[in-house]
Amino acid sequence: MAKKTRVALFICCILPHNISAGELLSKAQDWFQALPLESPRQEKLDPFHPQQIILGKTLYFDPRLSASGTQSCNSCHNLSLGGDDNLPTSLGHGWQSSPRNTPTILNSAFNIARFWDKEAAKLELQSMGPIRTGVEWSNSVDHVIKTINSMPQYVKLFRDAFPNDPSPVSLMNTERALDAFKAILVTPSPFDSYLLGNERALSENEKDGLAIFIEKGCVSCHHGKNIGGHDYYPFGVFQNSLSNTPVIGYRDYFVIEETTDHEFIFRAPPLRNVAVTAPYFHAGLVWDLEAAVAIMADAQLGEELSIAEISKITIFLKSLTGIQISFEYPILPVETSSTPRLKIDQLPY
Amino acid sequence: MAKKTRVALFICCILPHNISAGELLSKAQDWFQALPLESPRQEKLDPFHPQQIILGKTLYFDPRLSASGTQSCNSCHNLSLGGDDNLPTSLGHGWQSSPRNTPTILNSAFNIARFWDKEAAKLELQSMGPIRTGVEWSNSVDHVIKTINSMPQYVKLFRDAFPNDPSPVSLMNTERALDAFKAILVTPSPFDSYLLGNERALSENEKDGLAIFIEKGCVSCHHGKNIGGHDYYPFGVFQNSLSNTPVIGYRDYFVIEETTDHEFIFRAPPLRNVAVTAPYFHAGLVWDLEAAVAIMADAQLGEELSIAEISKITIFLKSLTGIQISFEYPILPVETSSTPRLKIDQLPY
Repeated sequence: MAKKTRVALFICCILPHNISAGELLSKAQDWFQALPLESPRQEKLDPFHPQQIILGKTLYFDPRLSASGTQSCNSCHNLSLGGDDNLPTSLGHGWQSSPRNTPTILNSAFNIARFWDKEAAKLELQSMGPIRTGVEWSNSVDHVIKTINSMPQYVKLFRDAFPNDPSPVSLMNTERALDAFKAILVTPSPFDSYLLGNERALSENEKDGLAIFIEKGCVSCHHGKNIGGHDYYPFGVFQNSLSNTPVIGYRDYFVIEETTDHEFIFRAPPLRNVAVTAPYFHAGLVWDLEAAVAIMADAQLGEELSIAEISKITIFLKSLTGIQISFEYPILPVETSSTPRLKIDQLPY
Repeated sequence: MAKKTRVALFICCILPHNISAGELLSKAQDWFQALPLESPRQEKLDPFHPQQIILGKTLYFDPRLSASGTQSCNSCHNLSLGGDDNLPTSLGHGWQSSPRNTPTILNSAFNIARFWDKEAAKLELQSMGPIRTGVEWSNSVDHVIKTINSMPQYVKLFRDAFPNDPSPVSLMNTERALDAFKAILVTPSPFDSYLLGNERALSENEKDGLAIFIEKGCVSCHHGKNIGGHDYYPFGVFQNSLSNTPVIGYRDYFVIEETTDHEFIFRAPPLRNVAVTAPYFHAGLVWDLEAAVAIMADAQLGEELSIAEISKITIFLKSLTGIQISFEYPILPVETSSTPRLKIDQLPY
């Protein structure tokens, strides 16, 4: 994989320093795609898709999916804060610290690679993983399904969303509904307008930053619809400057295969909304976007960028901040006397 | 206070068992008041009141008011769950358990008594108390004000809400804005329609329950706009049946004055939305509303209610569930490089 990256970098680095406006747009269209206006999934063919979105939104905000009854999807993937929690790493069940910085949920339907760690992804930590993960919700699927089934308002929402399923309240349908909601969390930005041909959507500084972003080779890992989020790369391609960055002790899950091939291999994060989702990197210990740009250039490209270049790339990255999703805050189904309760001696606190 | 309560109970208990529909409405209008359609505060005279509500809503949902960056007002007073968190007691900073069940924020602008414990209220634990309280947000006012001041979008919201204040970002204005937002969290219910003269707003069973509620003397503590929430009473007026209820060990803050006069003296909680805000009592250990009604009749009225009476009172209490507040979920101001961060060795986890 490292070899492939170097080849890509080589190609990028021979791009001319100064290119015309038309050439820049054309290059940008080669590397990136605008966000589609339609749902990225085929669910729109399902006539009950709108009901699935409604159910998904309800589930997304429901803290009763967690063992403690205090944590919802929105606790860490907070839609009022750019789809993440603006923390180095999240706080889960029992105030435990998550091992990785929480990525934004916005536009995540377009990610091919879904986790910081490829090994974690292999372990099938899929979207309903947080239910069971000890440092997240520490719950059981059985308890979640019993909880949902105890509330007639919830059962109705599942029936409305999956009317052809004889047993609509299930983990699979919970996941499908959450995926349907996630798929509408799409944030078009000025950069999309530019990619669609409106050259005035970006300022001259933003376009300069884009040109440097392409020319220096950032695009070799950060490209596509999400400007990243499609594959895993070693952190430290040209030089291992990790001693200068606060990531020591935050390796990939290489312990799983016990080979150093899996040390420091991380997803190239999607860069949409990057300006509103600090802190950065898998450990979330870098708060400043310009500092993050400089670290990446040094570690991945072997380049010491000038202050002006760092500044212009950062200005370009800010053009990736999309229109944040705004919607009606849901009223959740009401508990009943049959809703399972933890006994006093089982209370998680 | 106990004496006063007994006098009130005596008066109620001599009400006739069967009263006419008109008499019931008249009695109800004597004891209760419908929720006003207008704001309960005088702020509507302030032309900037709408901006104060907008700011208040933003602050209400902002987890960055807490030291950990994870807890907002809405974490415990969750507007998607009836304005509380459906837990025995809340989880605060460091996964600490709060000493008391969290009351609903809905209609709380009409409460005269604001805490379960009179002694706690005396200690000036006012609405901004959670900022500093160790088991809640464990933050400092200085840190909150610095955090707000670091975000130009927040400073603008404060300026818009308090344009005549030369230093608009302050603890006082934070509290005023939150109070302005709280004041719109009003949930009119079928019972209000009834109190305004629409006798068909309640079913026959609900009216029977109301008649028993008045006749048995529940109204002596639970009356007014919020059907409670105006004063403190001893728990166990007629007999101390606390050994039968799971409240042992959950006394009032009597340690403050070290006199048994202050044991088990609690606010008569407001009963609006009681059916959607289980569990009950100051310790939050009773989940079933009918069980809570039976315990109260036994402990406060010396009455062993029949199953039919308990059932009808419960049916009446359900008519106090109001139209839940629905609004646009806010997008919060964006952090900047000057937003204060905890250093790694100060991280709360």
